[in-house]
Amino acid sequence: MTNKKDINAGIIIIGNEILSGRTKDTNTSTLATWLNTLGIRVEEARVIPDKENIIIDTVNLFKKKFDYVFTSGGIGPTHDDITSESISKAFNITYGPHKEAYKILEKYYKTGEFNDGRQKMAWMPTEANLILNPTSGAPGFYVKNVFCLPGVPSILQSMLGGLKNKIVGGDPILSETISLRTVESEIAKSLLDVQNKFLDIEIGSYPFFKSGRVGVSIVIRSGDKDKIDKCCSEILKFVNYKKIEIIK
Amino acid sequence: MTNKKDINAGIIIIGNEILSGRTKDTNTSTLATWLNTLGIRVEEARVIPDKENIIIDTVNLFKKKFDYVFTSGGIGPTHDDITSESISKAFNITYGPHKEAYKILEKYYKTGEFNDGRQKMAWMPTEANLILNPTSGAPGFYVKNVFCLPGVPSILQSMLGGLKNKIVGGDPILSETISLRTVESEIAKSLLDVQNKFLDIEIGSYPFFKSGRVGVSIVIRSGDKDKIDKCCSEILKFVNYKKIEIIK
Repeated sequence: MTNKKDINAGIIIIGNEILSGRTKDTNTSTLATWLNTLGIRVEEARVIPDKENIIIDTVNLFKKKFDYVFTSGGIGPTHDDITSESISKAFNITYGPHKEAYKILEKYYKTGEFNDGRQKMAWMPTEANLILNPTSGAPGFYVKNVFCLPGVPSILQSMLGGLKNKIVGGDPILSETISLRTVESEIAKSLLDVQNKFLDIEIGSYPFFKSGRVGVSIVIRSGDKDKIDKCCSEILKFVNYKKIEIIK
Repeated sequence: MTNKKDINAGIIIIGNEILSGRTKDTNTSTLATWLNTLGIRVEEARVIPDKENIIIDTVNLFKKKFDYVFTSGGIGPTHDDITSESISKAFNITYGPHKEAYKILEKYYKTGEFNDGRQKMAWMPTEANLILNPTSGAPGFYVKNVFCLPGVPSILQSMLGGLKNKIVGGDPILSETISLRTVESEIAKSLLDVQNKFLDIEIGSYPFFKSGRVGVSIVIRSGDKDKIDKCCSEILKFVNYKKIEIIK
């Protein structure tokens, strides 16, 4: 049994604040974790600056390369928010006030408060489909397979629930983790032998430091539960033989 | 006054654990913040999987596209650590035990503990230059303009100090931040007017939520201190006029 179809995604993080180091990107991890639960594998993530030609080129490349594309950032009201206009250009769709988005925002703000800046958040590809925003009103949108979300992590996260029925996933990607009180070099050879027995299983080895002690997490990933179990048994064989402590 | 030369960099984060969402990447932020202090601007960061052809293609693209390239991840002792071999292939240099790295590791480990896995960490492009590792012995390396560092954030960070004299930076990229108790849509129009007056200055606007209250940080970046000061004055004019609270 393998995945019905191997469905993949690419993530584009748009924003100078990530490239300057000022802000740590957490949206890649949020999106990837969520996509995994839908059986969608993230193949690549790119952080790019707020430059129109780069946004257009990256979107045009990704929309062909991956089943789904997610962008984060650049859909707010200020001059440096240029994602919506760039997406319009990438798809050659008119950039203008989106009727439905305009209505949502008009209703969200009190009379007299729906100013120019707020109206700009209704500007997007006029034929886009909306992604509702339960946190702060201004919707995201998607055009074909490209889903555009805001950069603020808490708002992005709150919008994922409403997206589930708009995305067709694959069989879930399953994983098991075995954490060991050892260092990687002690198990490298044995782990390679197991990997060579299970060529279509992804076995990752990740050292960690916790409370001043080192350890290694072995992560086994596949769409096939049986194979994961067999692979885990093989790993546990050498772990027991070497008398390595398993961390529960 | 502008930068002596606009020196840039690209970052390649190598590792399935970032793309699965299991691990949040912090190395991009660490590297970007450090490079900024050297006057080097990060133009792009990519997260790619542990796949040889993708690593080779990305390195070959980046080494031409940017003045400096930094990779993180995949130089450890296990089977999924394939960065060193991939870099050898990208540069068409023999992949084998590096004499100096071998000596360092042989000395680092007690007699009898320098096993196969640990010896693998001395395998790299044989003509590479080493980057010393004050934390855990195993060195990183660089070939021409491509600098290869480990994925574990604390180890990567500890290796940057030793790199400073191997990199030629530009004039420092200066920045000022003005934090305001407002929302972006209240200042969008005024901020655009300021941006239009200072076309060669980068003005970013970043909403934040702290202790349940919203605010906006305006970040002004340039190599020219005078221009930053003038730009800040213009911003403070509309801030005072609109009676917006400045957060100290």
